[in-house]
Amino acid sequence: MRVLAKDIGQYEGKEISVSGWIHRVRELGQISFLILRDRTGLIQVVCDEKVSETNETVLTIIGEVQANEKAPGGYEIHLKEKTVLAEAASDLPFPVNQDPEKIGIEAILDNRSISLRNPKIKAIFTLQSDLIRYFGDFYRQNGFTEIKSSKLIGHGTEGGTNVFEVEYFDTKVFLAQSPQFYKQTMVSSGMERVFEISHAYRAEKHETARHINEYVSMDVEMGFIESEMDLIQIQKDLMKYMFTQIRKNNQAELDAWGATTPDPELCDKIPVISHDEAKKIVSERLGKRVFDINPEAEREICQWAMEEHGIDLVFINEFPRKKRPFYTYPKGLKTMSYDLVFRGLEITTGGRRINQYRMLQETLPKFGMTEEELGDYISIFKYGCPPHGGFAIGLERLTQKILGLSNVKECSLFPRDRKRITP
Amino acid sequence: MRVLAKDIGQYEGKEISVSGWIHRVRELGQISFLILRDRTGLIQVVCDEKVSETNETVLTIIGEVQANEKAPGGYEIHLKEKTVLAEAASDLPFPVNQDPEKIGIEAILDNRSISLRNPKIKAIFTLQSDLIRYFGDFYRQNGFTEIKSSKLIGHGTEGGTNVFEVEYFDTKVFLAQSPQFYKQTMVSSGMERVFEISHAYRAEKHETARHINEYVSMDVEMGFIESEMDLIQIQKDLMKYMFTQIRKNNQAELDAWGATTPDPELCDKIPVISHDEAKKIVSERLGKRVFDINPEAEREICQWAMEEHGIDLVFINEFPRKKRPFYTYPKGLKTMSYDLVFRGLEITTGGRRINQYRMLQETLPKFGMTEEELGDYISIFKYGCPPHGGFAIGLERLTQKILGLSNVKECSLFPRDRKRITP
Repeated sequence: MRVLAKDIGQYEGKEISVSGWIHRVRELGQISFLILRDRTGLIQVVCDEKVSETNETVLTIIGEVQANEKAPGGYEIHLKEKTVLAEAASDLPFPVNQDPEKIGIEAILDNRSISLRNPKIKAIFTLQSDLIRYFGDFYRQNGFTEIKSSKLIGHGTEGGTNVFEVEYFDTKVFLAQSPQFYKQTMVSSGMERVFEISHAYRAEKHETARHINEYVSMDVEMGFIESEMDLIQIQKDLMKYMFTQIRKNNQAELDAWGATTPDPELCDKIPVISHDEAKKIVSERLGKRVFDINPEAEREICQWAMEEHGIDLVFINEFPRKKRPFYTYPKGLKTMSYDLVFRGLEITTGGRRINQYRMLQETLPKFGMTEEELGDYISIFKYGCPPHGGFAIGLERLTQKILGLSNVKECSLFPRDRKRITP
Repeated sequence: MRVLAKDIGQYEGKEISVSGWIHRVRELGQISFLILRDRTGLIQVVCDEKVSETNETVLTIIGEVQANEKAPGGYEIHLKEKTVLAEAASDLPFPVNQDPEKIGIEAILDNRSISLRNPKIKAIFTLQSDLIRYFGDFYRQNGFTEIKSSKLIGHGTEGGTNVFEVEYFDTKVFLAQSPQFYKQTMVSSGMERVFEISHAYRAEKHETARHINEYVSMDVEMGFIESEMDLIQIQKDLMKYMFTQIRKNNQAELDAWGATTPDPELCDKIPVISHDEAKKIVSERLGKRVFDINPEAEREICQWAMEEHGIDLVFINEFPRKKRPFYTYPKGLKTMSYDLVFRGLEITTGGRRINQYRMLQETLPKFGMTEEELGDYISIFKYGCPPHGGFAIGLERLTQKILGLSNVKECSLFPRDRKRITP
């Protein structure tokens, strides 16, 4: 039976079998120290001979466990038998065991099956896996149902320019930019509270450290709300839950990147300021008039939140109508919508949606749209759709900001941008 | 504060507020019984007046809770105040509250925001949401990491004919048929054990009750296995876990469809038979020579398993090489691969993969392939890839077979087939 690195201390004095990759070898006179890496950590193997295998060869080692306070985890294995499970060529594109900054982002992304072996890079995706779990657990605990909606959209409902076109048998469809209309359908259909964790696609030509063309969208939609304030409240609770769980379960991943989460207890006090107020605060601080909450303003408003409220998260609500999609619920010239900015980056857009059929009919011409263009979407509202709203969090951006990485692409296993379509 | 249908019994004699859709109205002389539907159930509201609103109108009702053993859940509300949250047009495409069989599958799929209001149809997706959870929980408990891999593939690695083409800026990419190569990459990169729950795409021209062109694939891949028998063992454990959880949490959904799960305790005894044996058994039972495990044979072999082993699940392993993809690990003229057939339908394909670079190089020409065609895939194996394998379960098929539905499309919220691209 294979024993994992994290468990070898339980077998002191016993002969066990371990398997993994050769992480590093150090020769010391007649003795070699072979560091074996498995999914749970590193194991020091003491060999009375030279190690002829290249780094990254996959081995099974049989040997006796002995205590050694200098070994990783306080135990080492004295080699008795060694079997090669898989060979590794000697022309690794870069050594696995070095700081990711020395490798560089292009090499990291070009060679995912190698770069992910680096424990620091692997930590990104261990955390990300848990973020998916925390998000799902929180919403299930709050009466939400998980859905999976189609990503192949027959109508270009959400605006035609930034969508990818798919050849679909004898016709064309589009890759979904979001599950927006489907999650609204589910609220209207009586599920009331739904969430979805799936891919979303934006055919934007951006080439920045904050954009990818395919990302994982963690979406929420809920019925029987009064305004965006109900959404902001549940998102505060979500952030508190996630940060609490991360502190509890992911200290190793945080440590790998020298990162900390915001204080979960302060999440109740994340400031909520209007779009107008945000512009005013940023203008005053930057000493120039700001007309929009652009990336520079997002960084500045988080700085302000940190100084004034001790937490670098801030909700900005009451966005102007012209800055929001047609389906956003109006509030005079403003809307019942918001962004959540975290450590200088927008990670959520949300808001109440128009739920009355007549209001939607009146709104469409103002956005130069017709009922016909909306296709099946319009029928959601004809037969009793409760007041509702929702929001989405970009999984990669959330991961990036928690760990303090500089480029969102580092938080996608196989990112797609304008130029990158492999691996 | 809104009270949900399931909780009103806690408020006997108190005035509460409830919200939901008008499910049905029954007039009895001067009194009307309004049945309100929310996400947790039905509430009887007693009104001293006629109800003028159409069915499916969304209301908030304030009134006093009184016990009445004839009301759903044993309690009813005596109306004091009624507010219309959203109107419903009177031209519903079909009444919400009837047996789905009377509605018909095309009308159900054409009008999802209406058909999902039917409690029996909603039950399909309540169960499906939980199936996603059970699958994730089981694998996390067993040391697996959840991944999200790209669905936009630069190379047509998995065979070019059944893929959808996407216009991607100045080039073309393909929609992923499975996360096959990505999950293998993750094993090779040291994650060792991964799972993914994401959409997959097959551009097959089938028009049957068992195919959809976009489905949710629940994928698993694990390192350090010896043969497909390790995968079969963990899948037996998975099925046992899922059926146990369903019996514990989803009795209402099973009841809605008059369904039962297989006995979880019998999952350890699911028979494993070779492809040759399966053909032999089916040939004998059908009284004609069977050359392949086609849909008819799948039904017959499950019948056999039920009669001989008391459970209508059966693993068929040792598929011939020519029936499996090039990456399947050979075992003479057969392969270390399997299908799981459940109630007459294949719900899983799995197997050990070739992990040695040299074996892969030798195999490719036999399948008329070259290293170049495989692009980045090949590099997974160059630098130490442990023995590994995996499998996938189609979420819609699993849901279908548990509830005993006749068409897999009923188990997709917004199914895509050759002709259907809306809603």
